[in-house]
Amino acid sequence: MANPGPGNSITLRIDAPSNFHVTSELAAAAAAAGAAVTALDVVESHPATIVVDLTCNTTGEEHAEQIRAAVEGLQGVTVRAVSDRTFLMHLGGKLEVVPSVPLRNRDDLSRAYTPGVARVCMAIAEDKSKARNLTVKRNTIAVVTDGTAVLGLGDIGPEAALPVMEGKAALFKQFANVDAWPVCLDTKDTEEIIKIVKAIAPVYGGVNLEDIAAPRCFEIEARLRDELDIPVFHDDQHGTAIVTLAALQNALKVVGKAIGDVRIVVSGVGAAGNAIVQLLLAEGAVDIVACGRNGAITRDEEYTDAHRRELAATTNPRGVSGTLKEVLVGADVFIGVSAPNILDENDIAGMAEDAIVFAMANPTPEVDPIVASRHAAVVATGRSDFPNQINNVLAFPGFFRGLLDAGVSDITPPMLVAAAQAIADRVGDDELNASFIIPSVFDPLVAGAVADAIVRVVESSKE
Amino acid sequence: MANPGPGNSITLRIDAPSNFHVTSELAAAAAAAGAAVTALDVVESHPATIVVDLTCNTTGEEHAEQIRAAVEGLQGVTVRAVSDRTFLMHLGGKLEVVPSVPLRNRDDLSRAYTPGVARVCMAIAEDKSKARNLTVKRNTIAVVTDGTAVLGLGDIGPEAALPVMEGKAALFKQFANVDAWPVCLDTKDTEEIIKIVKAIAPVYGGVNLEDIAAPRCFEIEARLRDELDIPVFHDDQHGTAIVTLAALQNALKVVGKAIGDVRIVVSGVGAAGNAIVQLLLAEGAVDIVACGRNGAITRDEEYTDAHRRELAATTNPRGVSGTLKEVLVGADVFIGVSAPNILDENDIAGMAEDAIVFAMANPTPEVDPIVASRHAAVVATGRSDFPNQINNVLAFPGFFRGLLDAGVSDITPPMLVAAAQAIADRVGDDELNASFIIPSVFDPLVAGAVADAIVRVVESSKE
Repeated sequence: MANPGPGNSITLRIDAPSNFHVTSELAAAAAAAGAAVTALDVVESHPATIVVDLTCNTTGEEHAEQIRAAVEGLQGVTVRAVSDRTFLMHLGGKLEVVPSVPLRNRDDLSRAYTPGVARVCMAIAEDKSKARNLTVKRNTIAVVTDGTAVLGLGDIGPEAALPVMEGKAALFKQFANVDAWPVCLDTKDTEEIIKIVKAIAPVYGGVNLEDIAAPRCFEIEARLRDELDIPVFHDDQHGTAIVTLAALQNALKVVGKAIGDVRIVVSGVGAAGNAIVQLLLAEGAVDIVACGRNGAITRDEEYTDAHRRELAATTNPRGVSGTLKEVLVGADVFIGVSAPNILDENDIAGMAEDAIVFAMANPTPEVDPIVASRHAAVVATGRSDFPNQINNVLAFPGFFRGLLDAGVSDITPPMLVAAAQAIADRVGDDELNASFIIPSVFDPLVAGAVADAIVRVVESSKE
Repeated sequence: MANPGPGNSITLRIDAPSNFHVTSELAAAAAAAGAAVTALDVVESHPATIVVDLTCNTTGEEHAEQIRAAVEGLQGVTVRAVSDRTFLMHLGGKLEVVPSVPLRNRDDLSRAYTPGVARVCMAIAEDKSKARNLTVKRNTIAVVTDGTAVLGLGDIGPEAALPVMEGKAALFKQFANVDAWPVCLDTKDTEEIIKIVKAIAPVYGGVNLEDIAAPRCFEIEARLRDELDIPVFHDDQHGTAIVTLAALQNALKVVGKAIGDVRIVVSGVGAAGNAIVQLLLAEGAVDIVACGRNGAITRDEEYTDAHRRELAATTNPRGVSGTLKEVLVGADVFIGVSAPNILDENDIAGMAEDAIVFAMANPTPEVDPIVASRHAAVVATGRSDFPNQINNVLAFPGFFRGLLDAGVSDITPPMLVAAAQAIADRVGDDELNASFIIPSVFDPLVAGAVADAIVRVVESSKE
């Protein structure tokens, strides 16, 4: 399933003899080794030799070595250097902090800094709420992690988490003009994390919790929601639940089923699984079975952790038990936020007619989507190289744009539902089909639609 | 001493009858009320009326009201609105967080974010030091305050401190391309502040402590220097000491005296005063008398706080005692980082021939610089509306540029001396005179010169 991708893109700097065929031979050799060649530039030309930059997508480091070897197998050819374009892109980081006001002369300086700034400070000292208008708090959120559950990589620490948080902040700006700043904390202590986020909060208009291990993340989120006067969003829960509901609404339209009628199996009882289940219930789903590593959560079992207890109380109305594979038989919808390759073709074949499969484990889904699509009517994953990518970037930028614009201090379930609806609605009836249940992450109107939906919810709640 | 300044700049939107003389009458009325008119724009023109925007500098809010009243005193003229240009400039804050990498398409996204970013994360997880190259840590510092000693405003809280920290961050970027982020902490607890700065440190390549009240600031600085592996700069100490030494070196050149021969009186034994004294001693000054509120610090007194004890041990070799005014008699150099208007003309007249007066209390100096210049050979202040502005912005941007480029973890005294020398050297021998002992804050070469000086110190210490 590993295809060459742009995340593993390399550039080979090659010394080669200068003859008419050499560039096509280089490209052919790379392609024969499985490279997806994307560019070939002659950077120097001499009477007898040329220097060529060959850029190609690979499947990873080992593959890059094979490509290098294949190219060097050509007569008279040497590879001077292999540069990794992903690493090149990250050199020096992916964010800049730039002034949004001119600082060209002494007049500018007198207003932006001393002595003029003192009056602005005093206005805020007299009325703290003015910080929302007169500082970056108006448009800035903290992207907070402790580095313990980063992507699928686990506890890699706050330094190693930073490239992800920078990427996230870049997306916030790019898609919704929200200024976001990475806060990577060198502590795993729940109370300390809560204390620190509260202490740094004066600068921020919102908090996005990210990639913090369960169950710590739940306690942190709950406490911060309670104790801060700015909204606290937990992307692994809220973001995932929003995009999943959006995709499910459109998938159900494609197969002509109603959310209240379908049997839904959710694999994964962590942050994401829980939030998805609660949002689907709020939207009218009735028959949901949640599965952890030991199979279906049921009312008959005693669970020690709060989330499994809540799932036991609110799901599985038919009281089924058994493994994931067992309870999936006859189900209409599979939603996976769990682990790679836990289902096979037979499992999907055993689902109901016109089944919907969302296999969202990253980077490797619960079931190979190509295999799943032999039997299911609609298949979606978290991957960008298959149709129907269920990607949180559809939700979080616009969601925070709306929160900041509305100036709210709390996130409510109607906001999550409205955001999901706004995303789903970006797929027009004439566009909707089994391969297009969710808009592209590059749809330029998604973030604005989500933001508007949030603002409308807030306004209507004031009436 | 209050002149109309750009920090108190307003724009009046005025409805007036449209006749030939009206704009000059408006300008004249404002000027007669003491306004320094800087712009006059007709924004709408109708047969009988016009709308005019009149922009002028004032001395403050009361003065703005007087100007409004004066303009409205004209026949048929009404002022629709008075907008404060300083507040307008601060609307929405003064910083943006922008991506420094392209995010135009799926390929970009695959490298900057998932899945490509995972490889960068893993490289850092395996070797934390790689964060210095592959993340914003390479070029980013934290500007940390608890809001307890902001400008001359005192303990105004972290929200009210934010406009200053934003301004500071903007200056870092503008003058030295350093990305700086405001960290305004909602706690005054020394241990908590230390703990928080250590916890957020993974994102930063340096820490700039700012406007934290003494003596807490010393403990915080000392502990963080000890416990962090990134440089910790305390601008109120290091920055002030650097620019003061730079100015003093040139001032001594102007009057033809040597630092080892002059009698120096320093008023202020807080963060700034202490750091100045230590740096002057390191540069060869011998006869320094430091004065607190109760007069000269002497060896004969018992002091409870560590800094006064250190000053008592290292300064005042002649063992003089008495008030500031008393010990200033016959001194060659006065350096004030203390309180407004504590000296008068007689005090300056009583100093030695060719005296040097640095009255740096902000916004109101220890002595009126115009009065001081009747007797002293060289006068400098912290203000932008007198010659010889001793401004930390000459030091901190370039200093951190050098620290980040050299990748050092500690700030050493030779770096402070080298930075001061680099600033002093920006005033050429042909430019140097009593009114120009220090370069302009807009000298585009200062920051680079300071950065180079730091890098040279680091390199020579490696040899």
